[in-house]
Amino acid sequence: MTRHHRRQTAPLRWEGVDVREYKQEGSAPFRDVTRQVLFADPALASELRYFEVAPGGHTTLERHAHVHAVVIQHGRGRCLVGGRVVAVAPFDLIEVPPLTWHQFRADDDAPLGFLCMVDAARDRPQLPDAEALAQLCADPAIAAFIRS
Amino acid sequence: MTRHHRRQTAPLRWEGVDVREYKQEGSAPFRDVTRQVLFADPALASELRYFEVAPGGHTTLERHAHVHAVVIQHGRGRCLVGGRVVAVAPFDLIEVPPLTWHQFRADDDAPLGFLCMVDAARDRPQLPDAEALAQLCADPAIAAFIRS
Repeated sequence: MTRHHRRQTAPLRWEGVDVREYKQEGSAPFRDVTRQVLFADPALASELRYFEVAPGGHTTLERHAHVHAVVIQHGRGRCLVGGRVVAVAPFDLIEVPPLTWHQFRADDDAPLGFLCMVDAARDRPQLPDAEALAQLCADPAIAAFIRS
Repeated sequence: MTRHHRRQTAPLRWEGVDVREYKQEGSAPFRDVTRQVLFADPALASELRYFEVAPGGHTTLERHAHVHAVVIQHGRGRCLVGGRVVAVAPFDLIEVPPLTWHQFRADDDAPLGFLCMVDAARDRPQLPDAEALAQLCADPAIAAFIRS
């Protein structure tokens, strides 16, 4: 049965929604990220997930053919997308185009929480090899971001 | 070109996002609702829209085969879904299953703003005929909600 209405049980935690590991441990580098799948119905072409990065944490630096559509909900941080690092705050919109390197980092003194819409059928993320990393790090702002 | 990062220009208004009429005037009954399409990329299987209902306003009472996945963002109101009227507040999740009558109403003294994810390819909404309205109004709580 569809649960038509789910309230929060605590800020940004919901009835019937498990707080999961962001990814399987060891599968890719990340730090202090949780994942909650808010909507993933076979009747929907997409899923809506809520990710929360703890202060000082970060998602995996990766790219893939599928697009991310992100709405920031909580906290503060920075995001690498489209060859630029931008500061992000609640209700900012971020679109990650196909095969575009991206990473989200929470500030050291605040978490960063965001909704992310993705196609239900999607490809696996790719990690940067040494050459891709060198290319990204040719930009000092990106180098500092990745190493921060 | 994709705009990777769009900030707010005012609370819940965004760079490059038009504030539109909810529906074409006269196409269906509604009151004081705006629509902003936050993500609608041909590379995405779904769209993400932000709707805002002014105090005392309401969306159309309708149903359709496609599913709505809703995250409340702002304000206060009530929602009819799955034969029940529920009070909704920021970050509540609402899923509207196929062919399920639904309507959102803002409280009289607060707006109601919510994100709504839908498949990009979807059917047209159906309005209730006299028989469907009579069936809905057999429940006094729903009758009072629809007529409020």
